[in-house]
Amino acid sequence: MARKKVLVLHSGGMDSTTCLLQAKAEGHDVASLGIDYGQRLLVEMMFAEGQCEKYSIPRHVINVNWQKAERQIPLNRSVEEMAHSVSPAFLPGRNIVFLGLGHAHAAGIGADELQIGLNCVDFSGYPDCTTQFYDSYCTMLNIGNPGGPKLVAPLLKMSKPEIARLASTLGLQRNDTWSCYRPQIREGSIVACGECDACKLHEFAWQELK
Amino acid sequence: MARKKVLVLHSGGMDSTTCLLQAKAEGHDVASLGIDYGQRLLVEMMFAEGQCEKYSIPRHVINVNWQKAERQIPLNRSVEEMAHSVSPAFLPGRNIVFLGLGHAHAAGIGADELQIGLNCVDFSGYPDCTTQFYDSYCTMLNIGNPGGPKLVAPLLKMSKPEIARLASTLGLQRNDTWSCYRPQIREGSIVACGECDACKLHEFAWQELK
Repeated sequence: MARKKVLVLHSGGMDSTTCLLQAKAEGHDVASLGIDYGQRLLVEMMFAEGQCEKYSIPRHVINVNWQKAERQIPLNRSVEEMAHSVSPAFLPGRNIVFLGLGHAHAAGIGADELQIGLNCVDFSGYPDCTTQFYDSYCTMLNIGNPGGPKLVAPLLKMSKPEIARLASTLGLQRNDTWSCYRPQIREGSIVACGECDACKLHEFAWQELK
Repeated sequence: MARKKVLVLHSGGMDSTTCLLQAKAEGHDVASLGIDYGQRLLVEMMFAEGQCEKYSIPRHVINVNWQKAERQIPLNRSVEEMAHSVSPAFLPGRNIVFLGLGHAHAAGIGADELQIGLNCVDFSGYPDCTTQFYDSYCTMLNIGNPGGPKLVAPLLKMSKPEIARLASTLGLQRNDTWSCYRPQIREGSIVACGECDACKLHEFAWQELK
């Protein structure tokens, strides 16, 4: 496989960290990109930074903020329930902004590829996490910046347990990434809430690997 | 016409300012959105602020920065030449980022519409200023955020002289907007260079209205 320059949209969660380590394991010239959009992100960001330090991967963070409507974070939904409705935690335009900034930055650093950890098998029902969305974004990019960095979503059609197995082969353990939407302070530590969709999906992902 | 909440991507140039004033003249609840992306923008921004003050339109600016490759600004091209090749001043992903942030912000403030002053008749040949690009972006938005703010490009198929005539009926004069890519210091003032594509297009737009 030819060595490529790959920029990975990297939040510190399991999916994007798996993309990052897989691209690195494939021998590519890999860089991590974080988007700090002014939301409960500090814990995720610390995990992302720690992962990049551990694996000697350069990281850049873009700061940006826009007005957001209030949203509710549903608790204790089953993975089956998630598939049947869009979560009220949906932030309209989030992935559209992330991909736009990721693509522009990738073009600026001369990357061949922009990777995102989208997956649409076990997910929170967000419309900007679907195959149809990914395809429409690729079509738009090909028109708006022909010859620019290619958008790749390596995990798009993988289930959460499949992603956890891949993560595991890359050396990631269950607690090496952060997904929780509602970090809690407990006994002097910051811990995952265990109740939000992200926690439930993470538990579901790793259940067979316990 | 029902009164809508309209957010306009507003740079201070003729096209976006015309959109802004037209939406205002139609009686809509109008807001201006600037994107400060860390480029020769201070002069444009001052014009945009001044226009909003003059017409009592609220304005918000989103600051964002990403890595950009060096680009050349071609000088003294004719409007005909511009149509035949993509200008080396093209910044990959610029409009993709602008539309993404504009759309997310519009959703956050509960706007019905996001307007952009794109036009693809007399332009610098940028691939993210075409009808095909606009259509593909709308398709992607409808999938990624169904029911979200509608993307509207009121000037899409108008020529520059047509836009200048419309601007003129809305009370804008030739010198009320700023388009130049290369502001020059001359005799203690900041003046437009008169040589870049934006200056040439502006001159072409207003030639019949001199």
